[in-house]
Amino acid sequence: MQSSHYYSHTDLALEIREELDGENETEGYSCETRSYCNNEIQESRIEIKSIQAARRFGKFPGTYITLEGVDLSKNDGDFHDNMSDCIAGNLRSLLGPARKVLVVGLGNRNITPDALGPFVIDNLLITRPAFTQRIPEMDKDKIRTALISTAIAPGVMAQTGMEVLEIIRGIIGQIMPEKVIVIDALAARRLERLNSTVQISSTGISPGSGVGNRRMELTEDSLGLPVIAIGVPTVISIPSVAADILTAVSRKMSDAGRQELKELIHFNPELDHQSEEHYRTLASMMDRRLFDFTMTPKEADEAVRRISFTISEGINRLVAGF
Amino acid sequence: MQSSHYYSHTDLALEIREELDGENETEGYSCETRSYCNNEIQESRIEIKSIQAARRFGKFPGTYITLEGVDLSKNDGDFHDNMSDCIAGNLRSLLGPARKVLVVGLGNRNITPDALGPFVIDNLLITRPAFTQRIPEMDKDKIRTALISTAIAPGVMAQTGMEVLEIIRGIIGQIMPEKVIVIDALAARRLERLNSTVQISSTGISPGSGVGNRRMELTEDSLGLPVIAIGVPTVISIPSVAADILTAVSRKMSDAGRQELKELIHFNPELDHQSEEHYRTLASMMDRRLFDFTMTPKEADEAVRRISFTISEGINRLVAGF
Amino acid sequence: MQSSHYYSHTDLALEIREELDGENETEGYSCETRSYCNNEIQESRIEIKSIQAARRFGKFPGTYITLEGVDLSKNDGDFHDNMSDCIAGNLRSLLGPARKVLVVGLGNRNITPDALGPFVIDNLLITRPAFTQRIPEMDKDKIRTALISTAIAPGVMAQTGMEVLEIIRGIIGQIMPEKVIVIDALAARRLERLNSTVQISSTGISPGSGVGNRRMELTEDSLGLPVIAIGVPTVISIPSVAADILTAVSRKMSDAGRQELKELIHFNPELDHQSEEHYRTLASMMDRRLFDFTMTPKEADEAVRRISFTISEGINRLVAGF
Amino acid sequence: MQSSHYYSHTDLALEIREELDGENETEGYSCETRSYCNNEIQESRIEIKSIQAARRFGKFPGTYITLEGVDLSKNDGDFHDNMSDCIAGNLRSLLGPARKVLVVGLGNRNITPDALGPFVIDNLLITRPAFTQRIPEMDKDKIRTALISTAIAPGVMAQTGMEVLEIIRGIIGQIMPEKVIVIDALAARRLERLNSTVQISSTGISPGSGVGNRRMELTEDSLGLPVIAIGVPTVISIPSVAADILTAVSRKMSDAGRQELKELIHFNPELDHQSEEHYRTLASMMDRRLFDFTMTPKEADEAVRRISFTISEGINRLVAGF
Repeated sequence: MQSSHYYSHTDLALEIREELDGENETEGYSCETRSYCNNEIQESRIEIKSIQAARRFGKFPGTYITLEGVDLSKNDGDFHDNMSDCIAGNLRSLLGPARKVLVVGLGNRNITPDALGPFVIDNLLITRPAFTQRIPEMDKDKIRTALISTAIAPGVMAQTGMEVLEIIRGIIGQIMPEKVIVIDALAARRLERLNSTVQISSTGISPGSGVGNRRMELTEDSLGLPVIAIGVPTVISIPSVAADILTAVSRKMSDAGRQELKELIHFNPELDHQSEEHYRTLASMMDRRLFDFTMTPKEADEAVRRISFTISEGINRLVAGF
Repeated sequence: MQSSHYYSHTDLALEIREELDGENETEGYSCETRSYCNNEIQESRIEIKSIQAARRFGKFPGTYITLEGVDLSKNDGDFHDNMSDCIAGNLRSLLGPARKVLVVGLGNRNITPDALGPFVIDNLLITRPAFTQRIPEMDKDKIRTALISTAIAPGVMAQTGMEVLEIIRGIIGQIMPEKVIVIDALAARRLERLNSTVQISSTGISPGSGVGNRRMELTEDSLGLPVIAIGVPTVISIPSVAADILTAVSRKMSDAGRQELKELIHFNPELDHQSEEHYRTLASMMDRRLFDFTMTPKEADEAVRRISFTISEGINRLVAGF
Repeated sequence: MQSSHYYSHTDLALEIREELDGENETEGYSCETRSYCNNEIQESRIEIKSIQAARRFGKFPGTYITLEGVDLSKNDGDFHDNMSDCIAGNLRSLLGPARKVLVVGLGNRNITPDALGPFVIDNLLITRPAFTQRIPEMDKDKIRTALISTAIAPGVMAQTGMEVLEIIRGIIGQIMPEKVIVIDALAARRLERLNSTVQISSTGISPGSGVGNRRMELTEDSLGLPVIAIGVPTVISIPSVAADILTAVSRKMSDAGRQELKELIHFNPELDHQSEEHYRTLASMMDRRLFDFTMTPKEADEAVRRISFTISEGINRLVAGF
Repeated sequence: MQSSHYYSHTDLALEIREELDGENETEGYSCETRSYCNNEIQESRIEIKSIQAARRFGKFPGTYITLEGVDLSKNDGDFHDNMSDCIAGNLRSLLGPARKVLVVGLGNRNITPDALGPFVIDNLLITRPAFTQRIPEMDKDKIRTALISTAIAPGVMAQTGMEVLEIIRGIIGQIMPEKVIVIDALAARRLERLNSTVQISSTGISPGSGVGNRRMELTEDSLGLPVIAIGVPTVISIPSVAADILTAVSRKMSDAGRQELKELIHFNPELDHQSEEHYRTLASMMDRRLFDFTMTPKEADEAVRRISFTISEGINRLVAGF
């Protein structure tokens, strides 16, 4: 999970953009929204263009597409079908003309909210053996349109003793894919976004504002290949929980009390979205041990499994060439 | 999980007793502590005797034994061995002379922090078939000392459509055990108690202060048999997280701000342990949806499995009669 | 798994009927076949009417419906959808006007080929809480047509120390359903039937020719309620494996050698389907320990999960009243 | 699983040696046996020295150590403790003075009898992060004696689209270990060897008589580093099942019938151990589809987990340097 490294309150570009609405000095990015399937799915496309905007977002310049739909964790076959189509379409446009793709599922499969990546890998259509072994059942049409896909769930440092970057670099050197797709679990700010939002970005995975730990990055810079990232928020970040609790208490406080909070933790009671400074200050006050906890819905196991199927299906449609 | 029904900040009698230390009006209970194995394991034995004390604790009159040891979630074979012995000994003293025992593992095995009960059942020594089928391999000594054990993990209402009480009553009518042992996951107030504390009580399971929902209880009253409960805290309660966060912020506030919090949410900055009123007030302010979340350590899956082995082993020693 | 108790070579009425084709003395049963969905699904409906026929089949008088389709273990959404519809339709006709249904998933969830029953229970629509708790979100139409469903996966004797019959009787006494649906894994004779066949019968579950162990039965006789059984073959029986191997060897033998086999193990090289006597004789010669083994396809885990979804969905459509 | 590629009847050097006992022409190998812990554990050490012996065994020249003990699948703590010590000792002697070790767990974690390798990886002590991150809690003694360990469960071709050889070569290029330890599930000839035997060899993994598919090998030749292999038989090979069944039937046959079998399938009724030719001939007669099945004990899941713990513990003692 990306945010665990830097205690950010959200991994979603969309949520950071919502916070920037309260300010007016930011430029260098654009945001377009549209909806599909009778408004069942909302798509927001944020392009971060300038270095200044990248700093404000704490994210690399590039494209961040967010797909939202209330029912991603529910058992609604049609909705999942539509969402898989949206995922496939957006992947196709971000990937471009690549034919050899390596899919990497980050995370620890034994920790439910971190298992999204490995679960997606479990259900992928893997076509490379059909190409290398010339399996006769593959018809010519398929061979013309399908991608040559490989996949791995490399585990985490505590399990393997290796950086994910080391494992993936080694595999790239043997397999020579043209592009990499990385799947990871994310942290969100808002309860309602959990398990109901998919973020697809052109910038790969980097824990924290580009200033961070280069060993942790899976980006074009570190891998030498374009990296598309797919993420789904499966946990609420600890600073977000803290902010929710303080907001609830502050509503009952006097003007003086609220003013004190405003100064102390940059809390602005008039705004719906707080500034990043607010979350950072809060995080700095909290017991370090809390950051080793996750805040997940009780039915997380079921929800993470369902979403992983939808994402697998989206990638499989891309791979199968239709 | 018991506390999910009533939003209590802790299920541990020991943690409530710590809060009562700040007051001096409570009587009708006793608390004795001792330690074992070079202080590796601390045992506290709380006896709640009067109705007044029961109200203060929010728990039925009876015996609550807490076993604490830092390494319950670690892979230390000797420590687990000693803890299993302590569990077996305490169970034996609370059970008395019963020979036919039904063990019930509460909770949902698909939600890690709630899976403790089902996991314990997975590893139990089940002896009733050896008695009813006269398996020749059981020697006479064993037949003289072993308990006749049966076990079930009945699942939860959402899985079965039945109250646990209905299922257990039905089984008791067929199997006719003399006593029931119930295993359940608990919520704790303090981070350091997670996965490192075992509570054994003579009063069964009841969600909330004895005033609660009779359908949820597994007690001598509802089942017609003595019920021993074994619990381990696997989650931090949501009100406890809120209290931790507010404590951190209040430390930075002015005297006036702190005074306001004191009145608003019964927060006493001079005390180490807050009153139950504090947690109840906090809980009442919070977003209801937060109570459908769990706050668990990232390595919960591993920890819950290890502890379930230790408890199984404790029960198995009791059952095997040594 | 039913057949483990009596070493039968198949639990499918359809496969026994195929063997009877070689003979001509049997009467007292009928068999009709039809197909659905462009021949994607074949349905055979065997009615066993006389006691003589019941003896020949080794099964109770009643209805045995077999649904076959090659793709039950594959990931073909439409096919599973059609199969779920067929299952729902057949269940509805066998169940009749009952409204309160208890679904029982037999087997051990930790042994893949025996986990079908528990896996089906994991995905069932459980409606009883909505009826008893008067959940407002249930609209009036649904309340008029939906069944009141409960479900349990009672585990096996080795896990609980109780006969399944004891647990289910106890629950029936508390819940008072009108009918019971039992799901169990079966053994088949033919490799191609594994994970691609569903048998639905009106006679419940009984291990072996009606002469067997009454404690093991889940039938109207033992439970006092009509019992519909749903089964899917997930293992090849050990006598079937033995027969396949002997058939292969016998093809290379001399006439004299084949004649000897014919007398020794009732093997008829001219027939495609051997007699039950053949399998029984073979079974009697084999190492007893082999019967503690299962013969399963390597991809069993995936196949059993997929099929369990299809069966859950079939039951859910019945329960939801459409 | 190695043998799935070449339909061998056993992967154990020890079982092939037992068959050679019936012959007397083989030389170029030695076999020593000893026992430990009051005969609880039997150790056989086979050294294959000549090319001729390698051909007879169908195995590379090198050392093959077999540890046998009846209780490896049972829950006997002391026995597992002793076995872990034996494993650690033998690994130490085969590994020699290496300090940087990569452990590879072969197999598919979703297929119980093939999951041994991934399960062992799940429980390994991974020390490389402590060395690279200079974790202060590691004391000087430990740093002097512990190995620098990394580990990976690379999955199988069907999951990743990559040969295991490609993944491991890539990782070796990044991590630069000195030696590799590979864990894999094996097939055995005898029921009683399942889950009760550990084979440790100095020759790595190669499917079939050295003539086989180079892409499948994990050997010093293919990886450029010494490879120690640890294997446990978790399945009975299909030719072994066939042989057991034919042996049972042949015991009832006439002298003429037995003579025919002797010629047809090289079955020698006077011998306890048949020749490899016997198994190969049998395998050639059987339905190809049977080789996609596994023959496993019903309690395989539990047994494979227990054994994987013992092997992990053996490796961990080696890694921890005591």
